[in-house]
Amino acid sequence: MKWIKDLRFKDGLIPVVLQDYKNNEVLMVAYMNKVSLKKTVETKKCHYYSRSRKKLWLKGETSGHIQKVKGIFVDCDQDCLLIKVEQFGGACHMGYRSCFYRKLTPKKNLKTIGKKVFDPEKVY
Amino acid sequence: MKWIKDLRFKDGLIPVVLQDYKNNEVLMVAYMNKVSLKKTVETKKCHYYSRSRKKLWLKGETSGHIQKVKGIFVDCDQDCLLIKVEQFGGACHMGYRSCFYRKLTPKKNLKTIGKKVFDPEKVY
Repeated sequence: MKWIKDLRFKDGLIPVVLQDYKNNEVLMVAYMNKVSLKKTVETKKCHYYSRSRKKLWLKGETSGHIQKVKGIFVDCDQDCLLIKVEQFGGACHMGYRSCFYRKLTPKKNLKTIGKKVFDPEKVY
Repeated sequence: MKWIKDLRFKDGLIPVVLQDYKNNEVLMVAYMNKVSLKKTVETKKCHYYSRSRKKLWLKGETSGHIQKVKGIFVDCDQDCLLIKVEQFGGACHMGYRSCFYRKLTPKKNLKTIGKKVFDPEKVY
């Protein structure tokens, strides 16, 4: 696939922004290598490369919280992707819908503003 | 600032997703080092670290297309930020509102779906 060849991977990886296709909420940022990107395109389910576990990873493999691909977008520099998805359950392993569940307050503290959509202890 | 100390920078940098605070459009992804993040918090205007030019960079310095900070969010792993901004002009140096102006078609070609909001040749 030519468009994948044209992408600029760094150390074999490209960052991907995941966005809810309905309300445009940013859910998470993860990394794909070429293999996981091809798998994502073929299966229409998001696959990533885990930098800590050093392996291919189907999002939702354990939790069932898969991400169905609704649209793939490429940025100007071809070194970042945006994927709009239908998110089942929550994107965050901490139990939240979005990984960005904490907001900086005017007093420069982090405040949890996200709501838990599942209990991680029951899921993982 | 404790919350900045707790962030996990990689090679001194942290990726940042920029999102339109009104319609939640993802505008771009860029990188900040500690200095540019502190500048961003202090001035409420997004500053980045340019990996190619190896220097601090105020977004909109040349183009006038600044980004006013409306909210800063931290992810679960503390290795990525989401900043909601008021974007003046366009975020993309190619003249588009968003850097993600190309979409993958069912035939696996990239199609430009974004609209130009300025002429880069007149701005840069």
